[in-house]
Amino acid sequence: MENKTLMTDFYELTMAQTYFDQDKKDEYVYFDIFFRKNPYNGGYTISGGLDNIIDYINNFHFEPNEIEYLKGLGNFSNDFLDYLKDIKFTGDIYSVPDGTVVFPNEPVITIRAKCIEAQLLETALLANFNHGSLVTTVSKRITEEAKGRPVMEFGARRARGIDSAIEASKYSYVGGCSGTSNTLAAMRYGIPALGTMAHSLVTESEDEYEAFLKFAKSNPDNCVFLVDTYDTLRIGIPNAIRVARDYLVPNGLKFKGIRIDSGDLAYLSKEARKILDEAGFKDTQICLSNGLDERTIRDLINQGACFDSLGVGDNIAASKERLGGVYKLVAVEKHGKTIPKIKVSNDSTKTINPGYKKVYRFYDKTTGFALGDVIALADEKIPLDGKYTLINPVDTWKKKTISNYTVRPLLVPIFKDGEQVYNMPSLKARREYCDNEMKTIYPEVRRITNPHIYYVDLSEKLLTLKNKLIHQYTGK
Amino acid sequence: MENKTLMTDFYELTMAQTYFDQDKKDEYVYFDIFFRKNPYNGGYTISGGLDNIIDYINNFHFEPNEIEYLKGLGNFSNDFLDYLKDIKFTGDIYSVPDGTVVFPNEPVITIRAKCIEAQLLETALLANFNHGSLVTTVSKRITEEAKGRPVMEFGARRARGIDSAIEASKYSYVGGCSGTSNTLAAMRYGIPALGTMAHSLVTESEDEYEAFLKFAKSNPDNCVFLVDTYDTLRIGIPNAIRVARDYLVPNGLKFKGIRIDSGDLAYLSKEARKILDEAGFKDTQICLSNGLDERTIRDLINQGACFDSLGVGDNIAASKERLGGVYKLVAVEKHGKTIPKIKVSNDSTKTINPGYKKVYRFYDKTTGFALGDVIALADEKIPLDGKYTLINPVDTWKKKTISNYTVRPLLVPIFKDGEQVYNMPSLKARREYCDNEMKTIYPEVRRITNPHIYYVDLSEKLLTLKNKLIHQYTGK
Repeated sequence: MENKTLMTDFYELTMAQTYFDQDKKDEYVYFDIFFRKNPYNGGYTISGGLDNIIDYINNFHFEPNEIEYLKGLGNFSNDFLDYLKDIKFTGDIYSVPDGTVVFPNEPVITIRAKCIEAQLLETALLANFNHGSLVTTVSKRITEEAKGRPVMEFGARRARGIDSAIEASKYSYVGGCSGTSNTLAAMRYGIPALGTMAHSLVTESEDEYEAFLKFAKSNPDNCVFLVDTYDTLRIGIPNAIRVARDYLVPNGLKFKGIRIDSGDLAYLSKEARKILDEAGFKDTQICLSNGLDERTIRDLINQGACFDSLGVGDNIAASKERLGGVYKLVAVEKHGKTIPKIKVSNDSTKTINPGYKKVYRFYDKTTGFALGDVIALADEKIPLDGKYTLINPVDTWKKKTISNYTVRPLLVPIFKDGEQVYNMPSLKARREYCDNEMKTIYPEVRRITNPHIYYVDLSEKLLTLKNKLIHQYTGK
Repeated sequence: MENKTLMTDFYELTMAQTYFDQDKKDEYVYFDIFFRKNPYNGGYTISGGLDNIIDYINNFHFEPNEIEYLKGLGNFSNDFLDYLKDIKFTGDIYSVPDGTVVFPNEPVITIRAKCIEAQLLETALLANFNHGSLVTTVSKRITEEAKGRPVMEFGARRARGIDSAIEASKYSYVGGCSGTSNTLAAMRYGIPALGTMAHSLVTESEDEYEAFLKFAKSNPDNCVFLVDTYDTLRIGIPNAIRVARDYLVPNGLKFKGIRIDSGDLAYLSKEARKILDEAGFKDTQICLSNGLDERTIRDLINQGACFDSLGVGDNIAASKERLGGVYKLVAVEKHGKTIPKIKVSNDSTKTINPGYKKVYRFYDKTTGFALGDVIALADEKIPLDGKYTLINPVDTWKKKTISNYTVRPLLVPIFKDGEQVYNMPSLKARREYCDNEMKTIYPEVRRITNPHIYYVDLSEKLLTLKNKLIHQYTGK
């Protein structure tokens, strides 16, 4: 495996040099990864990328040629480069498991490590978290709107390069897709490899009927004909039916389905269903594709479109959205004490929650639905039962006292003193976990447009600390 | 290097099996890569990804374990899998060079190959072309609006995974960025590694002044202070100036610059300029960052914002856009003759231009500006001088006769009979080529909003053929 440790922003290295010069290399710091806004104007985000983060950290080291390269740049001292030669990760990492439903401003990953190690991890951890979470989130949004109908991910051709495509296939599976068209991803991760047929097989042939017939002969178990090359209703579906009657039925084979990849999918699918039913192929399935996203899928269903499965490409693997996960220093350790830190900035939304923290999710004991999350300082005790008062972090007069709840800490240990202490669940297990996570989220929060805003509150102690630090750093 | 040949859509393999069963494996076909719409509602696109496409094709083969995997799926015959075992690319490829200005509907890459080889290449070629071109295009749009001020690419943390980030850094350099924060990309591709400082260095420290001082001591040649951690004008810039006076000036070092990463950048940069000038630091530069894109940069300049360089992250490496390059069969060879093919479909915009084609760009001989492109059949003769009549492919009554022109064929041979016949220019050469390309494009076409639509016409012969085929395939 190629070493990718150096996939780090150059300023991480100049920061590291600065820490080194200050003889701070053994100082422990805490960084949080969090994001400020759910993507897609949605009500939730689903975390992803932890598997790649673990691989990156386990491999974290510099090769001699990389040290040579850095030396040649002239920005770094020899002592510092000698230190980098032997660096490895020796800290602690806490993270939500991949597939967890998470919300803005709560720490999803917390790093406690020597400052140079922690600094150098920033870029790669963010890139992996942001990509993994974005794809898992949109896949869940799309598969939810498909209401149980299988969604095949086939966006590789529009992805941000080959490797990005492979990763997108993996996370789309965690987010509920039934499989992928990406054969390498399917092999590597044990995901079902799926596909139907291509327009080129039809255009290459003299005749669409001939093309369908040949396809049927070569793929007898997967007869899904792509019917929109020339004219879906007038030419394509009649040809598919002819092949079914001339070849599939006489040979005891199943006319599995048709795929429509252009035109108005609501209209065409309803007409297609009628034609197939009238021809006696009531079990023949209809697969739709062509620029589908969660809103179009919802609307297709609302308009009575007839379909049994979907293919979604662009909007999963090359989504026009972005997740803005950030990596912020929240505390340093000095003389055995943890000192909380803050970044204030001119944008109040960029002001962070200081300190080493934990996140707790409160569930209604009766229904199992999540009631809200509380971000608290790590040393706070959260009552496991009884009553607890949630305080809105902005409008602090908004309070809500809950009882009859269960509590779950969201962050789990991943690394301890540089050693991995977490067993990454299988991809299938992550997919099931994610599915179960969603069942605890109110439908109002899961709504794809104008969702209810889930409660993420700060403990009173954290709120007090935050206000104190804001004054301390800007009140001067 | 890990073999990524299998990064192909599963249906490419089932199509290939179908061709194999029809004993067509030696039949030559032609595929075009083209796109239907410029990204960003822009007037142009810049091609990218050819370097990765060449690598993919040179490596194109299947490993024994991959054949075993395919065998285990049960969809493929042993004969076909035996054929795949020894497959390599034996065809021809024509492409525009990376960095070429291209337009919708014109072939940017043409593949002539045995049908199975051509089919299997589709997914990877598209993923590479789409990603490379998207990043190069947006980088050029952004660097153009920066009007000569250097733009640093630093989007790795928001990219679609680590590898996507590395590729984005490379193509952003072709598109005119001055360098990248991505150290691995910088090393691998010989791009300048750039960066300033991080907020965490300030928050880690007891005091912003102390942090700046330490940073200056460790990075004497690159003193660009990030001034927005607590309050840009009231705290950050005064601290930077103090460090300059207390440490930089007395030691003969340069107060190189400040970076502002939040707040209103127009207002803050103008105020910052005043403060710096009044303190006597007229040469100290101002770098701006924070969610910048080409429109914001244009508006900042229009509003008199004072800056010398920019950092752009998200909108290059994690652009909220997409390029929809497609791969369409346009001809087959039978008995030594090239037979053009068409895909019509219910969406008229999805109807393709048939046949094996070439693209010619006409330039004004006096000004050097590009006048329009003509897509013609490969065997047509385009007059190198004299007069030529451009015909609008939709509104065919719109004609324009040009003279005093020079002509350039856009597609160049990349592979011939499976052998690479093209020497990929250095990254720097591609960057210069791209820059020169832009100089031939009218400013009206380069305008970032509502640009003039560049002429891309079909030759009369191609237009006639297209209409004939549409009737032939749908008139039945």
